[in-house]
Amino acid sequence: MSDVEIGRAKRARRVYAFDDIAIVPSRRTRDPQDVSVNWGIDAYQFSIPFIAAPMDSVVSPATAILMGKLGGLGVLDLEGLWTRYEDPEPMFAEIRALPPAAAIRRMQVIYTEPIKPELVISRLAEIRASGVTVAAALSPQRTQELHKTVVEAGVDLFVIRGTTVSAEHVSKNQEPLNLKKFIYELDVPVIVGGAAGYTPALHLMRTGAAGVLVGFGGGAASTTRASLGIHAPMATAVADVAGARRDYMDESGGRYVHVIADGGLGTSGDIAKAFSVGADAVMLGSTLARATEAPGGGWHWGTEAHHSEFPRGNRVEVGQVAPLEQILFGPSTVADGTVNLVGALRRSMATTGYSDLKEFQRVEVVVAPYQK
Amino acid sequence: MSDVEIGRAKRARRVYAFDDIAIVPSRRTRDPQDVSVNWGIDAYQFSIPFIAAPMDSVVSPATAILMGKLGGLGVLDLEGLWTRYEDPEPMFAEIRALPPAAAIRRMQVIYTEPIKPELVISRLAEIRASGVTVAAALSPQRTQELHKTVVEAGVDLFVIRGTTVSAEHVSKNQEPLNLKKFIYELDVPVIVGGAAGYTPALHLMRTGAAGVLVGFGGGAASTTRASLGIHAPMATAVADVAGARRDYMDESGGRYVHVIADGGLGTSGDIAKAFSVGADAVMLGSTLARATEAPGGGWHWGTEAHHSEFPRGNRVEVGQVAPLEQILFGPSTVADGTVNLVGALRRSMATTGYSDLKEFQRVEVVVAPYQK
Amino acid sequence: MSDVEIGRAKRARRVYAFDDIAIVPSRRTRDPQDVSVNWGIDAYQFSIPFIAAPMDSVVSPATAILMGKLGGLGVLDLEGLWTRYEDPEPMFAEIRALPPAAAIRRMQVIYTEPIKPELVISRLAEIRASGVTVAAALSPQRTQELHKTVVEAGVDLFVIRGTTVSAEHVSKNQEPLNLKKFIYELDVPVIVGGAAGYTPALHLMRTGAAGVLVGFGGGAASTTRASLGIHAPMATAVADVAGARRDYMDESGGRYVHVIADGGLGTSGDIAKAFSVGADAVMLGSTLARATEAPGGGWHWGTEAHHSEFPRGNRVEVGQVAPLEQILFGPSTVADGTVNLVGALRRSMATTGYSDLKEFQRVEVVVAPYQK
Amino acid sequence: MSDVEIGRAKRARRVYAFDDIAIVPSRRTRDPQDVSVNWGIDAYQFSIPFIAAPMDSVVSPATAILMGKLGGLGVLDLEGLWTRYEDPEPMFAEIRALPPAAAIRRMQVIYTEPIKPELVISRLAEIRASGVTVAAALSPQRTQELHKTVVEAGVDLFVIRGTTVSAEHVSKNQEPLNLKKFIYELDVPVIVGGAAGYTPALHLMRTGAAGVLVGFGGGAASTTRASLGIHAPMATAVADVAGARRDYMDESGGRYVHVIADGGLGTSGDIAKAFSVGADAVMLGSTLARATEAPGGGWHWGTEAHHSEFPRGNRVEVGQVAPLEQILFGPSTVADGTVNLVGALRRSMATTGYSDLKEFQRVEVVVAPYQK
Repeated sequence: MSDVEIGRAKRARRVYAFDDIAIVPSRRTRDPQDVSVNWGIDAYQFSIPFIAAPMDSVVSPATAILMGKLGGLGVLDLEGLWTRYEDPEPMFAEIRALPPAAAIRRMQVIYTEPIKPELVISRLAEIRASGVTVAAALSPQRTQELHKTVVEAGVDLFVIRGTTVSAEHVSKNQEPLNLKKFIYELDVPVIVGGAAGYTPALHLMRTGAAGVLVGFGGGAASTTRASLGIHAPMATAVADVAGARRDYMDESGGRYVHVIADGGLGTSGDIAKAFSVGADAVMLGSTLARATEAPGGGWHWGTEAHHSEFPRGNRVEVGQVAPLEQILFGPSTVADGTVNLVGALRRSMATTGYSDLKEFQRVEVVVAPYQK
Repeated sequence: MSDVEIGRAKRARRVYAFDDIAIVPSRRTRDPQDVSVNWGIDAYQFSIPFIAAPMDSVVSPATAILMGKLGGLGVLDLEGLWTRYEDPEPMFAEIRALPPAAAIRRMQVIYTEPIKPELVISRLAEIRASGVTVAAALSPQRTQELHKTVVEAGVDLFVIRGTTVSAEHVSKNQEPLNLKKFIYELDVPVIVGGAAGYTPALHLMRTGAAGVLVGFGGGAASTTRASLGIHAPMATAVADVAGARRDYMDESGGRYVHVIADGGLGTSGDIAKAFSVGADAVMLGSTLARATEAPGGGWHWGTEAHHSEFPRGNRVEVGQVAPLEQILFGPSTVADGTVNLVGALRRSMATTGYSDLKEFQRVEVVVAPYQK
Repeated sequence: MSDVEIGRAKRARRVYAFDDIAIVPSRRTRDPQDVSVNWGIDAYQFSIPFIAAPMDSVVSPATAILMGKLGGLGVLDLEGLWTRYEDPEPMFAEIRALPPAAAIRRMQVIYTEPIKPELVISRLAEIRASGVTVAAALSPQRTQELHKTVVEAGVDLFVIRGTTVSAEHVSKNQEPLNLKKFIYELDVPVIVGGAAGYTPALHLMRTGAAGVLVGFGGGAASTTRASLGIHAPMATAVADVAGARRDYMDESGGRYVHVIADGGLGTSGDIAKAFSVGADAVMLGSTLARATEAPGGGWHWGTEAHHSEFPRGNRVEVGQVAPLEQILFGPSTVADGTVNLVGALRRSMATTGYSDLKEFQRVEVVVAPYQK
Repeated sequence: MSDVEIGRAKRARRVYAFDDIAIVPSRRTRDPQDVSVNWGIDAYQFSIPFIAAPMDSVVSPATAILMGKLGGLGVLDLEGLWTRYEDPEPMFAEIRALPPAAAIRRMQVIYTEPIKPELVISRLAEIRASGVTVAAALSPQRTQELHKTVVEAGVDLFVIRGTTVSAEHVSKNQEPLNLKKFIYELDVPVIVGGAAGYTPALHLMRTGAAGVLVGFGGGAASTTRASLGIHAPMATAVADVAGARRDYMDESGGRYVHVIADGGLGTSGDIAKAFSVGADAVMLGSTLARATEAPGGGWHWGTEAHHSEFPRGNRVEVGQVAPLEQILFGPSTVADGTVNLVGALRRSMATTGYSDLKEFQRVEVVVAPYQK
């Protein structure tokens, strides 16, 4: 681990973002159609390694179903508008129309509406009825309060997602979630994060999680770096957590915990890079918020944007590019890495001679900062 | 200390700005409300580690009192408009309204009005009457002339602040201030700076100063780098001076000199980074000039901007963001790191698992230059 | 080979673009007119080391002839408009006039028109009749289908050019081109690429190729990095392939395979740098698309831009700067490196004291990223 | 000398521009008025170490005299408008008024007017009559033709200035200038350059030159990097040539050759940095072209801009900032490093505790790239 001296009393490690690296071809090439992008976690198999992020601008019950039908996975945010409002559409319409200066303030109010357990149940039932894999997300703060409702409503994969989730949360005022005990007692596989380093991820793996989300405010709608000073560039974060996966597999006698890159994946090129440094799957936000079916209607925001006291994100306009199926599988009529995400991943693997995602984690990458 | 060859006859060290680094999470997290941001220097205790900078655009007698009531410290510049004019308001109004091309020239004239000792006394009396800690600043050049007036008027903390202050100033034309003798004879604690390196800071610590200001023209309104070629990126400067604090504590048998980052702190993220590399407290300029109560009225300037022969700064428009209390404690309705500075610092510490500022100086940081 | 740690599970090499490097003068200077820029490959001699790229916006039969008369080489793309349409001019006119949003979509349609073997024959005959060296390009996919037609029509140099061409292409659905067998059986010299690394290039050299094109989507009209995550900065790519040339010369007992930089050569400065890191010749796209005779008429595009499912480039407006002869030999009335490319190369060599291109490959270069 | 691998067949050294470095304060400070900026070369003494560059936009006979009266040195370009035209003013007026697209083309024509020996004599006589030190410049190409006229007309310092001047110029068509023999036979001290590296500068020093100009197209009006690929960042160039000065002093038994930074000195900060890495004096172009007396009238151009076949520079608008005396000595009413150049240098030296320029060459510098 190479580190540098910041000053007499401090040393630091040099870390890398996706924009700092690039994939390089090898001596062999392959046909894109001979490449497999299959992914499986626990008992669930997917023909594409893409997970739609639990964000109101990305996943509604309808897009969760559509994502499943197309071979991937959609995760519903159980703390979003769908579980707060019987009919959330007027809220979506209002958020889209807010003038920029007033957006955060009004969203803070909209999201004070209480979560209704009966809506949790009905939204999950709607997804289950379609036959796709059912996945839902809660923040660590809400998990104790709502997890029984969620499990009874029936989920296949349980996602615990916060800005930073640690295996050891310390609190004087309330009993923190004991992740290890919680995961042990729950009878569905749990994906948990974000974690952005080797040690935090290793501790999360030891809780029994089936997958770890890698990221920390790296998304298009986040301003965590300016507001908290905290930042975890994704190329290093994913490669570090992949190192934790390898070491945990050794210490656990063979348990493979999935590494899921979550954030900073704005183009198909970024997605390919995530796999190149060790990801097993990717969780997509802004990339899928551009689908014509996405509930955000061309806008994208995360839960950080409407935090009641400390918003750390913005509502950003991402536009509507194409239907979800075309964004995933093409054909593309633009050349900016926003359409035909699956085709791009296949082509990137084929061009460098790899035939499955696990092998592709070994592809050579270089450090090559962008020009200009 | 890693250095590089600039050319055959010159080597140089690589140094780092706050923008070059980021804080990274660790394996533990905490509740923000369990975090302490208390700070104390000499006999004075503060519930927030923020000092309002002695600049006319930031601290008036009224905002010094307000800052004290809110738990921090405001330092009045005794060479500013408040001690030159019985009623400075018309000058403030004129400065705000100046067209850009004429601003420096007119400010040079406005600041030629002599300093009035009786105004020094009455301004400090006004602050003292409110019951808050009284702090006032002079430049090294004016300290000999005015310090008796200041001490008699009554200050709790005496600040000597210049672009660069050294323990050893050489002059052929006038007897320079003997800092060591001056501080020894004064019966109030002295905070002195700016210093921007290990050796200059160590020498200042040996003068008996209670605190050292770290900085050199790093602020939003400074152009020192373009005009003098001198620049001290703050992440390295603070970490170097923190190294001097550690070594001086050893050589002095336990005297702890406070390291106060002064400059380049434009967002709550920058503030968190200052502590992460070793600061005990921060002196804030542009960040607090954005308060609706700030005397600058949405504009910000330093003494460098109206230097009679060699201006090295500009009057810059920073806007009015929120009342001072909201800038410090929130709630925030923007996500750019300008509001809820205390909340942000708490959250940054909590997210990385630290419970007090002294511990937080050990948090892991990385080198991660901004993209694009 | 210096590499860095991206994260625990990944290391990467630092690579360099032309913009990252600069040529430095040595202790000797020379007159530009004493410098030779001659280049020869196989039996063919050229007075300038410039090859016009097989792209519809650069090479028509007429500009291939003009390029030859001026001392260089023009390569006709046998999969472009000239072999699909008896009269391609209306297609060129339409492409130039397309609104940006519709450009890729319409070009995808225009290029679905089948390739006509009789047009392949007549276009090559037209070039041959002029007396210049005849060179034509096919993609690896089309080489098996069309190469007999091409050889019978008569070419002096056969170019196989794709985004990435490897010596070992794996396909389940069709028998891939066996490059080694193909080149051995063909009785004309073959130039093949792009390759962008030591190992892929070494394998291509072992197929018997006379020259290797170095590049991978580095051109002005490419978006491969954003869409696939793949990128090969040219300074490193050319220097790596030059290393393969040296090692292959040793292993083959003296066979010299030409290294031809292809892409990222936007200015005469970039061209000089290509030779400085080891190129024997350069293939030029956008630089020559700016000629008033260029078929693109001020626009430039590659085959990536109209890929039917996965476009990875754009139609870009490059403008019309000067007639081809003036772009190559001056005089210049602009100072931006777009006119007098041969004069610039001569002057760069003369200023650093070199008299031929092979020697100039040893000139000292430095790493000096652009300011601002 | 630290170098990096560009690719298998090429290594390169990392070099630095003035923008990459900054000066840092030390433990001592000083009064600016106690600082000496005297400079002397051969028998000539100057109270400021600034040389006005031999460029038509900077030095006329009148400004050469003014520069001398103010304590510095002005060098007249003997290949400029003043020796081509009896009355050059209409040419200056025309150049200022040219539309951008036509500027280079028309300047190429204006500068084809032959140089008149009688004008060389009368221009130099005008300067000599004022009593200031007389300095004049020729390009290496013109030196043989015109030097007798120049010496007879009477110069104190003879400047040979080209883009790159080497001690060993090779030419098949004409006998090149034998610098060593030329300088030996001439009875006035010679300043020669540009040179931009250790070895070229060492060879120039061995010719007997009194001073070496360090630079290569680094000026505000140059596009050498884009057009030739050649670039020599100034911080490294000056430090390298300062190394050659030290080594040559050793090998020559004590001859001190002056190192004069020439180019890339746009602000007073850049000037301070030039001395900090080893310069004895600086040659200023754009900085002085901003004087109201400068013949360019707010415009600036070098000889590269009107090269007949290969222009490598532009006519750029630099504006008129203040009279020359105020640009040099202040007072300043702007804060961008363009006014009070001498005051800035004094202040930079005083702030870091140095009292003369030779000592200031030892000041500590850091590598600190600009943010944003």
